[in-house]
Amino acid sequence: MLRILGIDPGSRYTGIGIIDARQQQLSYVHHETIRCGNGDFPERLGIIFKGINEIIRQYNPHEMAIETVFMAKNAQSAIKLGQARGAAICATQAQSVKVHEYAPKAIKQAVVGKGAAAKTQVQYMVGLLLNLQDKIQEDAADGLAVAICHANNRWAQQHVMAGRTGSWRNL
Amino acid sequence: MLRILGIDPGSRYTGIGIIDARQQQLSYVHHETIRCGNGDFPERLGIIFKGINEIIRQYNPHEMAIETVFMAKNAQSAIKLGQARGAAICATQAQSVKVHEYAPKAIKQAVVGKGAAAKTQVQYMVGLLLNLQDKIQEDAADGLAVAICHANNRWAQQHVMAGRTGSWRNL
Repeated sequence: MLRILGIDPGSRYTGIGIIDARQQQLSYVHHETIRCGNGDFPERLGIIFKGINEIIRQYNPHEMAIETVFMAKNAQSAIKLGQARGAAICATQAQSVKVHEYAPKAIKQAVVGKGAAAKTQVQYMVGLLLNLQDKIQEDAADGLAVAICHANNRWAQQHVMAGRTGSWRNL
Repeated sequence: MLRILGIDPGSRYTGIGIIDARQQQLSYVHHETIRCGNGDFPERLGIIFKGINEIIRQYNPHEMAIETVFMAKNAQSAIKLGQARGAAICATQAQSVKVHEYAPKAIKQAVVGKGAAAKTQVQYMVGLLLNLQDKIQEDAADGLAVAICHANNRWAQQHVMAGRTGSWRNL
């Protein structure tokens, strides 16, 4: 069994999703949204860092998955997003959880089946794949989505290593 | 006495400067450059985070000063810089060291006397203000520069609070 922590970092809301992967079987463990508040920027980064640290201590994930960011509206929002991402990654580095990065397209492909899916489609498919009853908050759904993407990828790797063929999109 | 840790974050080199401020008197304590290596990005952020954590444990600074970043060549370099900055700030948040941010112009103004100074001028003036014999590495000089800027600012605050007048640029 592999417990995966998926993170969708943001300087206002950081989405968290945790799943357990047993071969092709995925099960939901936890989701939450870290609300960074209206304090100054260092304080918000501290909230992300400490929040993720606490989540790692509580749920003991084996690996962490996070979206690779290449684009942003402008330099200032890129720096803000980068800082939030840095805070999230540091929390995992502080507790020696291995980090895996995925491009936004790969995450949508893994969850919805196409790289250009809308946020609502991701939200819907995450709920379906993990048998969730209620609609979950957007950022937490993105956290679960990147965790699902990593689970698929891990399974595909094992598959390839075992010399078998199989589509890693069909969980 | 106020011990100040100044940080110039970067995803390749992170400059560190530590000074002690006694009123208008500044004394050099330490400088170093954290080399982040050629590993993957999470690993580099871990090097920054752990490096600064270790420096805080060793030197026990009271406060930390860091440059505010608004500009970057492009979105990708802004995200990289943001992540390095996030890692540096997290290290201070993890050890409850208060962070103060300064605009690049304010730092140059404090050290060189004008907001549009070149890097070499900052390097030269840092050496002069702290009585350093040898030329120090550029990023570490920038770390010392932001620490000097914060010392000046702190002194000016005390001055204003005491109801006295004085130029905070003339240390």
